[in-house]
Amino acid sequence: MWRVMETPLNCAEEQQPPPAFPASWSTVTPQESPADRNDKGNAVGFVLVHAGAGYHSESKAKEYKHVCKRACQRAVDRLKAGALAVDAVTAALVELEDSPFTNAGMGSNLNLSGEIECDASIMDGKSLRYGAVGAVSGINNPVLVANRLLSEAQKGKLSAGRIPPCFLVGRGAHDWAVNHGIPPCPSEKMATKFSLSAYKRNKHKMELAEKVDTGFNHHSKKRRQASETENGSGLLDTVGAIVVDREGNVAAAVSSGGLAMKHPGRVGQAAHHGCGCWAENTSTLNPYSTAVSTSDSHIPPASRGCSRTVAGHRGRSVSTCQYPNNSRLSHTHFPADHTHYPMGHTPSSKPPSAILKCNLNAPPPPPLPPHSSNTFGLF
Amino acid sequence: MWRVMETPLNCAEEQQPPPAFPASWSTVTPQESPADRNDKGNAVGFVLVHAGAGYHSESKAKEYKHVCKRACQRAVDRLKAGALAVDAVTAALVELEDSPFTNAGMGSNLNLSGEIECDASIMDGKSLRYGAVGAVSGINNPVLVANRLLSEAQKGKLSAGRIPPCFLVGRGAHDWAVNHGIPPCPSEKMATKFSLSAYKRNKHKMELAEKVDTGFNHHSKKRRQASETENGSGLLDTVGAIVVDREGNVAAAVSSGGLAMKHPGRVGQAAHHGCGCWAENTSTLNPYSTAVSTSDSHIPPASRGCSRTVAGHRGRSVSTCQYPNNSRLSHTHFPADHTHYPMGHTPSSKPPSAILKCNLNAPPPPPLPPHSSNTFGLF
Repeated sequence: MWRVMETPLNCAEEQQPPPAFPASWSTVTPQESPADRNDKGNAVGFVLVHAGAGYHSESKAKEYKHVCKRACQRAVDRLKAGALAVDAVTAALVELEDSPFTNAGMGSNLNLSGEIECDASIMDGKSLRYGAVGAVSGINNPVLVANRLLSEAQKGKLSAGRIPPCFLVGRGAHDWAVNHGIPPCPSEKMATKFSLSAYKRNKHKMELAEKVDTGFNHHSKKRRQASETENGSGLLDTVGAIVVDREGNVAAAVSSGGLAMKHPGRVGQAAHHGCGCWAENTSTLNPYSTAVSTSDSHIPPASRGCSRTVAGHRGRSVSTCQYPNNSRLSHTHFPADHTHYPMGHTPSSKPPSAILKCNLNAPPPPPLPPHSSNTFGLF
Repeated sequence: MWRVMETPLNCAEEQQPPPAFPASWSTVTPQESPADRNDKGNAVGFVLVHAGAGYHSESKAKEYKHVCKRACQRAVDRLKAGALAVDAVTAALVELEDSPFTNAGMGSNLNLSGEIECDASIMDGKSLRYGAVGAVSGINNPVLVANRLLSEAQKGKLSAGRIPPCFLVGRGAHDWAVNHGIPPCPSEKMATKFSLSAYKRNKHKMELAEKVDTGFNHHSKKRRQASETENGSGLLDTVGAIVVDREGNVAAAVSSGGLAMKHPGRVGQAAHHGCGCWAENTSTLNPYSTAVSTSDSHIPPASRGCSRTVAGHRGRSVSTCQYPNNSRLSHTHFPADHTHYPMGHTPSSKPPSAILKCNLNAPPPPPLPPHSSNTFGLF
């Protein structure tokens, strides 16, 4: 039997600046039941989802909790049916994208031209394969395209020895998706009342700011440096999930509608290889499997570094699941000050029922002794 | 006084399989002249260009040598005029893109629809900023767009606090470029006699291969695995350059037309952050400045790793220039077997006039003693 548990939301009034914390996290912890244990007697499977960094209003707290719970459950259902991590993580992402409250798929931020262009990527820790789409319009579930790119590439070369793509953008990505059976969705159906009103508000603010710039050229530089909260671009961000399956394979995925009022064709970190997500099974060289899903698109990739290496250095809101030798799980979290706080290690013998605490505004907990059963360890 | 020196080309008959080596490299070595020395008495400036990995015919050997020489000279001219590394590397890339013989800009491979879609990226080791375009059509010099994205981002935020883009793709990238004064070029003018005839030949081969697949479905998987040389996708590849300027700043850039017969919208490593190029000035944490420009787009990024980390591990044709504390330069090269062969270290006190040897088909030279003046070290 599996149990889905969600963490309390970090909510704040809309007038406050956007803090660097995830809006909501949900995790799955299996209760002790023989059916959920593998041959070695260990509990199996792990799901962690996030609904994005950035600032969220109190009024939507309930919705974010619900969508995270549903996303977890979708992944759990797939795992229970025997699916691999990469398919379970896709299922979680589809649920997150389908929510009109997240900035991914349905309800994504609108760009400068009033269009929705989405980024998404997925990585399979078993094969180390990666699939991504960037600036794709008219596809409700960009993660399905990323997943399909990954699985098609695993089939080997195309006719006449052509190398299959792993990263497609724009119209080409849309056409490839439709040709591979992924249903298109008219862009106007992907916009929501909330995203449309945000677009109008942001456009008005932009026009005002540019008028002021024109009038007072000597102040223009200062005005360009104005807070990013002005256009609400800090409000919503990338969503993502990481999954460990029964075999110990890890997978990670992210999806994002990108920054509000971005330039058409702008591709964010969610589609950047090694920036949006990273997954790597344990190997002879690496005793830990690692899965990372980031939710910080406010920093240009170059200054942020890759999620492949960011886990230990730079991420604001990075979730990392380490699963060494199929024997234990630990969860680590890297808050805004770039310091690495190990938040818990649990022994494999007795899986704790646990909730991930992830309020980055709160002071980090003190380091925990190894192998203690605590509320931060997960599996 | 500066001297441009080219290395001998690695040429082979067209019937042979494509080896993993750069077609041509040119390096710049300054002769000892007080005018070319910095305050500390060291020789200043360094340029290294490559015209791509893959297989090139004997008949074009002369052209590749010439374009590499011209590209070096363009960068040298900029450095002599006091330009920073990032501008000099752009100048070199423009020359490489303008050549109808390279797979970048003019004369790029055509995609499945018979169109040219280019990738390019640039990184400034001083600011760690990065600019890139992917799958952009109708722009003769994609590196100019990448460079402009980089420099615009350095100006700070846009009106109403919007974050400027650093990676644009497709139509959005084209429109942004034109709006920023980069001249468009009709796609039909970017195709050459060579690229058009290659497209026709490849299309015919593809149609034949797919006909065979349809007739013998049980063999189709095997046929999909056919050699990539069948469609000529291994013939030409990414071009690139790395530059060190008088101040010791490093910069790197790459540009590519991508694989022949690629799917429209496919973005290759040349536009992937950390995959196509990497540049990082020396810092308190890092005693070496590093600049990397890769020329291997035959491996999907996920299995290849980032050029940021690839330098020590995986690149096929990676050029790395390390320039520690403005005191010495070394060149390292990483051949196809992923082994790292240090090809030379030179002391700062006496810069040798040297040529970079980079024939990866030849057995790697034995490791050289540190601080020896040799033909592999560069100035």
